[in-house]
Amino acid sequence: MPEPRRFPAAQLRAFTTRVFAKLGVPEKDAVLAADVLAVSDLRGIDSHGVARLHTYFDMLSAGRINPRPTLRVVRETPSTATIDGDNGLGLVIGPRANEIAMDKAAQAGSGWVAVCNTNHYGIAGYYPLRALERDFIGWAMTNSSAGVAPLWGAERMLGTNPIAIAFPGKEEPAIVIDMATSAVAYGKIEMAQRAGKPIPTGWAIDREGHPTTDPQAMIDGGALLPLGSGRELGGHKGYGLGLMVDVLCAALSGANWGPFAPPFAINQAISKESVGRGIGHFFGALRIDAFRDPEEFKLQIDLIVRTLRATRPAPGTNGPLIPGDPERLAEEERSREGVPLLPAVIAELEDIARRTGVEF
Amino acid sequence: MPEPRRFPAAQLRAFTTRVFAKLGVPEKDAVLAADVLAVSDLRGIDSHGVARLHTYFDMLSAGRINPRPTLRVVRETPSTATIDGDNGLGLVIGPRANEIAMDKAAQAGSGWVAVCNTNHYGIAGYYPLRALERDFIGWAMTNSSAGVAPLWGAERMLGTNPIAIAFPGKEEPAIVIDMATSAVAYGKIEMAQRAGKPIPTGWAIDREGHPTTDPQAMIDGGALLPLGSGRELGGHKGYGLGLMVDVLCAALSGANWGPFAPPFAINQAISKESVGRGIGHFFGALRIDAFRDPEEFKLQIDLIVRTLRATRPAPGTNGPLIPGDPERLAEEERSREGVPLLPAVIAELEDIARRTGVEF
Repeated sequence: MPEPRRFPAAQLRAFTTRVFAKLGVPEKDAVLAADVLAVSDLRGIDSHGVARLHTYFDMLSAGRINPRPTLRVVRETPSTATIDGDNGLGLVIGPRANEIAMDKAAQAGSGWVAVCNTNHYGIAGYYPLRALERDFIGWAMTNSSAGVAPLWGAERMLGTNPIAIAFPGKEEPAIVIDMATSAVAYGKIEMAQRAGKPIPTGWAIDREGHPTTDPQAMIDGGALLPLGSGRELGGHKGYGLGLMVDVLCAALSGANWGPFAPPFAINQAISKESVGRGIGHFFGALRIDAFRDPEEFKLQIDLIVRTLRATRPAPGTNGPLIPGDPERLAEEERSREGVPLLPAVIAELEDIARRTGVEF
Repeated sequence: MPEPRRFPAAQLRAFTTRVFAKLGVPEKDAVLAADVLAVSDLRGIDSHGVARLHTYFDMLSAGRINPRPTLRVVRETPSTATIDGDNGLGLVIGPRANEIAMDKAAQAGSGWVAVCNTNHYGIAGYYPLRALERDFIGWAMTNSSAGVAPLWGAERMLGTNPIAIAFPGKEEPAIVIDMATSAVAYGKIEMAQRAGKPIPTGWAIDREGHPTTDPQAMIDGGALLPLGSGRELGGHKGYGLGLMVDVLCAALSGANWGPFAPPFAINQAISKESVGRGIGHFFGALRIDAFRDPEEFKLQIDLIVRTLRATRPAPGTNGPLIPGDPERLAEEERSREGVPLLPAVIAELEDIARRTGVEF
């Protein structure tokens, strides 16, 4: 494996901000978009940080994403809104729509925002983390281009459609759930393929729909399996969750769902058919004090966290983690030591620097 | 296997209603509670229908459930409420709280209700089905007594904590998702044990925390595994979902969570420690027209259903089902042919008849 090199997070953030600005994104929006990528890199979700900057660069340069979108409220009620993202960066539309959900919650107790005509919005976990800052329970989902087969299907029909939600503790760290509704992320297939290693049964099928342990067979027209894998271990449940995300994000907002969701990649063909505008997101915010004294709630979260940590460990393990633990530890370490980037990613950033004239 | 006998659904419903009434439940509430059980039996969820009536009978007879609860609104905002169920039947408190969520949605666009001090509420899928009647997207969760180990844990810490949500179609049937967040329901372990058959790896661990294929080893102090089973196939995700349900239902409402959730069984000891009141539910309702023209939305659902049904089938299958298909087909068949009950269940109903004087 090639050795990664470490970069201070602030340096990556500054570079990313200037690249977006150079591509016509207004300064304030560029800062926002760079923040989403920086949080992803800090929290160890390498696939969603600056490793994706070249794709955003490609899409903006090709005019496939609008650098100066005007958000439009399509419908609204005291606790809900539907937003048209004007084909803007998901990294900008997402945080804005999430803010609207929180503002609604501040007024009405809860806020729910469905977004169409948007693009890839970074890690889903970014959004509930913002909600924690306002003492809200935050919820975020997004659909994405199809890579997952429904149970008993032999082709890609749904995105990896993640769900994220977070709950604040008082002295203990927050519980932060951020999970794809597929058995694994596509990135894990690519990693196995690069390492020349087989993948476990239950991750993927080949182009005929047979279970496969060959990562290349998944990549060449196969599909990921939903969480739960086959029928026996509950693949119908992961499929149901992925479908739920697609309906809330896309059918409810007026975006493209399932096989119609446009790819986030410059060299992948866009489906000729369309059933809506762009991809979709769905954000939720619940004001804690609308349900219970926030102090009492946070003390309960502390107690839940401590109770779960005290679970008798399964043999060969150190016992259960709390959702969000790995990302929090990565954030502490990377804030101190810098963000490790692989040579291939560094080469991409250097390419962007060359083409934009923004110094890396 | 013993042969089941068929009973008309109306007969079971009438019997159940009169049993509840005889136990001091007000007539209107008895009708409601019987409806929840009847829908479960009709939809083929045998474990949650009249097969549970003896437990409700036991709990009411022993004074462990309040037959005449007074619902109390603990807190509320335009789109949210926290309800204390006064230790009533979950079969009554659940539908009432769900109604409050829908009434909030009618006013504010969405409605979210957390409930404490309640009991087992039947199938989670019952509640979103009610929402469909009002053109809402309905959401329901409940926590339950611990039976599931968190990933890397060796003991029962979380309930099977189901999530249900439903989306209406126009010409196609609704998408109805109703799933436990464990790999399987406890009932499947019991069925394997009675049949003397092994269970698949990935369903359960034994009391030491080792994976087991022996159903008895799970029953004797072992635990179910979360959806996704071990780490490799995403057990941390099912664990995260189960934890999410526990927080929304219990930590947010003031109910007992995790290992503190009281059991729904007369002969199981109640935990000496308590962190709240009863178990908890969480209901949500979204008005479709708050987000999009309901006609347009339903046409999209029709298109999603047809698109998924047209997926190329995996080898040896007939292709993907739509969530809710098996239950809908069971409902059609059982409405016509009657509800099949096993001799053991019939004997329980006869025992209730003898003890209450209500004719079966």
